[in-house]
Amino acid sequence: MSGANRFVPTLRTGQAHPHPAPIGGDAYSAVELMPGYRLVILDQRKLPLQERYEFVSRVDEVADAIRNMLVRGAPAIGITAAYGLVVAAYAARGDAPSFLEAMSAADALLRASRPTAVNLAWALDQMKPVVANAANLPFVQRTEALAQAASGLHRAEVAACRMLGAHGLTLVPDGATILTHCNAGALATGGYGTALGIVRAAHEARKNIRVIACETRPYLQGARLTAWELHKDRIPVEVISDSMVAHFMAKKAIDLVVVGADRIARNGDVANKIGTYGIACIAAAHGVPLYVAAPWSTVDLKCSSGEDIPIEERPERELSHLPLADGNQLQLVPDGVGARNPSFDVTPARLVAAIVTERGLARPAGEASLANLRNG
Amino acid sequence: MSGANRFVPTLRTGQAHPHPAPIGGDAYSAVELMPGYRLVILDQRKLPLQERYEFVSRVDEVADAIRNMLVRGAPAIGITAAYGLVVAAYAARGDAPSFLEAMSAADALLRASRPTAVNLAWALDQMKPVVANAANLPFVQRTEALAQAASGLHRAEVAACRMLGAHGLTLVPDGATILTHCNAGALATGGYGTALGIVRAAHEARKNIRVIACETRPYLQGARLTAWELHKDRIPVEVISDSMVAHFMAKKAIDLVVVGADRIARNGDVANKIGTYGIACIAAAHGVPLYVAAPWSTVDLKCSSGEDIPIEERPERELSHLPLADGNQLQLVPDGVGARNPSFDVTPARLVAAIVTERGLARPAGEASLANLRNG
Repeated sequence: MSGANRFVPTLRTGQAHPHPAPIGGDAYSAVELMPGYRLVILDQRKLPLQERYEFVSRVDEVADAIRNMLVRGAPAIGITAAYGLVVAAYAARGDAPSFLEAMSAADALLRASRPTAVNLAWALDQMKPVVANAANLPFVQRTEALAQAASGLHRAEVAACRMLGAHGLTLVPDGATILTHCNAGALATGGYGTALGIVRAAHEARKNIRVIACETRPYLQGARLTAWELHKDRIPVEVISDSMVAHFMAKKAIDLVVVGADRIARNGDVANKIGTYGIACIAAAHGVPLYVAAPWSTVDLKCSSGEDIPIEERPERELSHLPLADGNQLQLVPDGVGARNPSFDVTPARLVAAIVTERGLARPAGEASLANLRNG
Repeated sequence: MSGANRFVPTLRTGQAHPHPAPIGGDAYSAVELMPGYRLVILDQRKLPLQERYEFVSRVDEVADAIRNMLVRGAPAIGITAAYGLVVAAYAARGDAPSFLEAMSAADALLRASRPTAVNLAWALDQMKPVVANAANLPFVQRTEALAQAASGLHRAEVAACRMLGAHGLTLVPDGATILTHCNAGALATGGYGTALGIVRAAHEARKNIRVIACETRPYLQGARLTAWELHKDRIPVEVISDSMVAHFMAKKAIDLVVVGADRIARNGDVANKIGTYGIACIAAAHGVPLYVAAPWSTVDLKCSSGEDIPIEERPERELSHLPLADGNQLQLVPDGVGARNPSFDVTPARLVAAIVTERGLARPAGEASLANLRNG
């Protein structure tokens, strides 16, 4: 990657560039398209101790950033992949056939970077007709056409999060304590967030809510990312280990659970960060409702049930070791002992009280309620 | 503390000392009484990267070792507390009244070191008549009387673990995959282990079992300790995060759950390491039996139900930071964000298929089955 810097929105203003303002947010953003068709990506692996941005100008670097989880969260990796095509287009200065060949290779590279989140494939599919239509334009115009389309997807995802938050607001009682898992916030999306979009909407509506964030092993997105972004917004948040959920539910300290999703099957089954299904079992045993918040782009109608969702198994070293700031690692598991590291699990629709999308609520989650949203 | 060393059982042999052989095991031991009435305590916080023993010769250091979790696990801290009285007796060279005063102070100090495990109070209660009977003996004899009694408790706990393992063996099918949480092994007891005592018994009976160990945040006893001691015994073990239990149960990859206990109420409710109750909810949802293994000293008949068991809340820094070998800490949670750290939870008896003790099985767990064991 070509450099590192703090996120400075003014880098983009005051320049003769068609996207002068960051889309994700003024204070921080998971990913933004910058002048010169470079991307700036917040390296979320380094949060909360360092807020470090990487500038990326090659499509293979974009794929690496997704694979290595500098950027993560289903909607955010979809947006990043769309921008990855822009980066690739800016590097493809040849004629239409060579442009299409380069774009096809870029699509394949980006599509394979992570398997579970459907938003990645969805965003690339959205870009396909744009690429086809732009192929015969001159270099400057075709690159800009892709930039406009990808930025449009980004803007639409943020708008979807805000709409989703407004729909979800009705599910949050005044004074509620909301449990969330992993990070389905501004950092996981184009901005505003899905699960944390509902939290933000409730906070903006002065509902006096507070959040309990599961730390979310092995990657600690809850402790590192959810806590960081909610604290920035002055929304009360406390961190617990993933193993404490049942204890606090037994103490009646949790009113509802809101999580994001990486892929939702046609029947309402939800793939989300490993641990979600366990929380769903525990919530059901305590009569606590669990809501899933996701943009419609997370719904995979081609997928009939959770059994059809591929579950990524990440390197065991991400469980057995923790990265340190100095580049070393803290070893947690003895030499010679193996670890397992499935990154997602599947929560069956029957444990999901509602799926909250920008189109409204699928309530209870299931084939019928999702079909209503699709057709409505 | 007065020094550090590797555990060398031969330190104790070849000397004119009445306890020439380690009781907990030849290869390693959580705690042993050494010549000169010092204790050697394995600093379990440093495992698996360092196997470091601390020599302790003052009762306040023994209490600190329990409070700071150099030694942990309900049976092991009971044994350590009993040895703590021996250390105190060796320091109390005065007449009977001053001896009794010193022993009373030592008892109070040790009893307050951790609140949840009943074995701590139980072991100190067992030592009370020994202290009273020894008060009028000369210094050398009274110290030795306490040493014999504490060593006797230690030996009895190891024998109980082996007996318990034999009883539990009947619950383990051939080829079973056993999930365990935290560390209820040789390191948590006088030796052999409770939950891992059953695992060891099944392994010794050539049942071809394998173990999945929950890493057990925040203290990682599963990743660090259970993996370490099973790997030493060449029992197949893999580590997962606590959040993966439901996923693997859904995949039918777990046949039974075996855990230890810190206190068992008269009605069969079980206090154990935080996370146990969540596993119990998840196991119930999947029809997987959960067994609790504990010496009878863990049963608190004065405690009518789990509601009466005090739950220790440890410093939040133990959740928000991880200790590094160089004495620094890895910060996981952003500055300004709080964390909660209850160390135990309560699993209701209805979720416990059986309690396995050296007296036999309380099956299903409950007031009646425990009363049968008490009277039988």
